[in-house]
Amino acid sequence: MPYVMVQIPNTPAPPKSPAPRPVPTSADVARLAGVSRATVSYVLNNTSAVRISEPTRRRVHEAAKELGYVPHAAARSLRAGHSRMVLMPTLPVPAGQRYSQFVHDVQGALSRLDYTVVQYGATGLRGDDAARAWAELRPVAVLVPSPSIGPDGVAVLKRSGVRAVVTLSAAPVEGAHSVFLDHAEVGRRAVDHLYARGRRRIGVVIPEERGMEMFSAPRLAGARDALHGTDATVVPLPLAYTEESAAALVDRWPDLGLDGVFAYNDEYAMLLMRALQDAGVRIPQDAAFIGADDVMPGRLLRPRLSTVRLELPSGRDLAALVDRAVRNPGAPPESHQEYGATVVHRDSS
Amino acid sequence: MPYVMVQIPNTPAPPKSPAPRPVPTSADVARLAGVSRATVSYVLNNTSAVRISEPTRRRVHEAAKELGYVPHAAARSLRAGHSRMVLMPTLPVPAGQRYSQFVHDVQGALSRLDYTVVQYGATGLRGDDAARAWAELRPVAVLVPSPSIGPDGVAVLKRSGVRAVVTLSAAPVEGAHSVFLDHAEVGRRAVDHLYARGRRRIGVVIPEERGMEMFSAPRLAGARDALHGTDATVVPLPLAYTEESAAALVDRWPDLGLDGVFAYNDEYAMLLMRALQDAGVRIPQDAAFIGADDVMPGRLLRPRLSTVRLELPSGRDLAALVDRAVRNPGAPPESHQEYGATVVHRDSS
Repeated sequence: MPYVMVQIPNTPAPPKSPAPRPVPTSADVARLAGVSRATVSYVLNNTSAVRISEPTRRRVHEAAKELGYVPHAAARSLRAGHSRMVLMPTLPVPAGQRYSQFVHDVQGALSRLDYTVVQYGATGLRGDDAARAWAELRPVAVLVPSPSIGPDGVAVLKRSGVRAVVTLSAAPVEGAHSVFLDHAEVGRRAVDHLYARGRRRIGVVIPEERGMEMFSAPRLAGARDALHGTDATVVPLPLAYTEESAAALVDRWPDLGLDGVFAYNDEYAMLLMRALQDAGVRIPQDAAFIGADDVMPGRLLRPRLSTVRLELPSGRDLAALVDRAVRNPGAPPESHQEYGATVVHRDSS
Repeated sequence: MPYVMVQIPNTPAPPKSPAPRPVPTSADVARLAGVSRATVSYVLNNTSAVRISEPTRRRVHEAAKELGYVPHAAARSLRAGHSRMVLMPTLPVPAGQRYSQFVHDVQGALSRLDYTVVQYGATGLRGDDAARAWAELRPVAVLVPSPSIGPDGVAVLKRSGVRAVVTLSAAPVEGAHSVFLDHAEVGRRAVDHLYARGRRRIGVVIPEERGMEMFSAPRLAGARDALHGTDATVVPLPLAYTEESAAALVDRWPDLGLDGVFAYNDEYAMLLMRALQDAGVRIPQDAAFIGADDVMPGRLLRPRLSTVRLELPSGRDLAALVDRAVRNPGAPPESHQEYGATVVHRDSS
C-alpha cells in the first residue's frame, strides 16, 4: 500500500506568506540589558580576558533568555578561533549496518571530547566544489570516509580555517591525515581464500545500486589481482539488492559454471545464497560463499557465512587523532595503517 | 584482533603548536580586487538589486579564487534571510536498515529541491538545550525524527530564525508541523496478529541497548493494550543484540512457556529465531514469530518472517512538506496522518 500524505481536516487554510518574526540579535539583548554589544559578546562567549561584574552578567543572561537570543555558532566560532564541529560527509548510498555502527561510535567518542559531529548530506558535488560547500559551515575538522577529496579540496578546507582533514581511504591525500582503508585488499583476501579452498571459477558480485562503485570497483580489482597468473577466473556478477534480481541471476546460474562467490558484502551474500539454496544449489559443496563486513546476520545464516573483516579504527582512536590534529594544526599529516583485512572462515566456504 | 593505530615511521616529529595560517576574509578579496567590501558581498551573493559590471564581477571572482576565500554559509544565510540547510538530529542508537534508507531518501528528495541535509550528532542534550544547540547552526528547517522536542524547544528554534519544524512522532508538538509515527500501533498490530493466530502467552522483546527505550517502550505499551481484557498475557523479554544474550534467553525458554513472540524488529527476530531453531524449537508450531520494519533479511529467513510495517512518509512527500513550510513560515502547522502500521503475514506466524 503506497504511502499518501493526508492533510487532516480542520486545519485552517494558510494565510498568504506572512512575514516571519524578526530574529533577536545581540543588539536587542544589549538594549534590554542596558549594556554595550561588546559586553553582551563578552558575557555570552564567557570571555575571561575582560572583567565583568556578576550582576551585569546576570542581566545579560536574563535579557538573552527573555528575548530567546541564541548566539550564532559560526560567528562565535570565528571569535573563538574555531568551532567544535567535526563535519563528516555522508556516503552517497544508504549506510550498511557496519558503517552505521562505525559512525555511531565515532560520534560518541568525539562527543566525549566535546566535539559535535555533523553529517553533511551527499549533494552530488565533487572535489573542490564539495570541499567549498563543507567549508561554508566552518567546521574545525573534516573526516572524509570515502575517496571523494583530493589535495585541492584539502587546500580549500585548510584555507577556510579547517584545522584538520582526516581521510579514510586507500591512498593518502596530500595535506590530510590519513587512515588506510584498502577495499582492494578485501577483494584480494576474499578471493585468495576461495582459491585456497580449491575454487577456480569465482563470481564477484557488483551491486547495481548507484554510488556503490567507489567500493565495488576496488574490491573487484583486488579479486582480479589475487587470481592474476593463476589457472582461475573472475566472473563479475551484477546484482541489485532485490529478490527479483537474485532470481534472475539464479536462472542464469547453470550457464555460469561458478564454484565460488565473493558476494561484495554479507548483505548481498545472504540474498544470493538464499536464492541459490531455494533452487537446490548446495553451499559450500556446489558454490563456496564469502561476504564482507562481518555483520550479525551472516553469523545467523546456515551454513554460517564466511566473511572478510576490513578493520576500521575504533571510534576512540579516530576521535583522538582528530583532537590531536585540531590542537596542533601545523603538525605534518599523520598516516595510520590498520591491520588490513582478515578472513573469518565459517561454514559457507 | 583488536585495532591498534600504528604511526608509520619516517613522519617527522610535529613542531610545537605553530600558528595556523590566517583565513582570508572578504576584506582581503576586496583589497586584491581593488573594490569595496560591499561590492565583494554583492558579487559573491549574486545580489541582483545592485548593478555591477561584468569585468568587476570577474575581478572579484578571480581574487576570491586566488585567495581561496569561501563565503561564510551562516553569514550569507543571515544576509539572504535564510539558509538552505535542513537539520536532522541523529537518533541516539545506530541506524537500522529501514531508517538508513529513509534518511537517504529524504536527503535525496531535499537535495533535488536545493536543500542540504545536515545530521546533527546526538549529544545527550535534551529539550531546550538540544534545540539551542541546533539553532546555533541557523538551519532553515529542522526535521525531528524522534520524540525529543517539546513546544519550548520549537519556540527556541523559531525565535532563532528556523522557518519550519517538522516532527515525526506519535503526538503533535505545539508550533511544529507533524507527521504521525505511532510506535504503540506497531506493538498493538503485532500482538493482535499473534492473538488471532491462537497465541496466548506472548513474549515481547525489549532491546537492552541504551537509547532504544524511546521506541521499545511504546511498542510494549501497544502490545499490552492489545491484550487488555483478554485471556492472554504479555511477557517482556530483555535481549541484547548478541548471540550470547540470545543463548541465555534460550536457556530460560522452557520455563517461560511462551507460544508467540513479537521480537521488537526484524533484526532481533532473526537473532532469537535462529537461536531457538538451533535448540530445536519449531517455528511457528512451538512459537509464532513476528518482527517489525519489513527489511530484506526477514524475507530471506526460513520460515519467512512475518512483520509489521510502520508506514513512513516517502522522501518526496516529506521534502515537499518541508519546502512548503519554509516558503510559508507563518502558516499554521500541518498535521499529517499516515496509514499506520500493517501486518505482513508470512510463514513464521
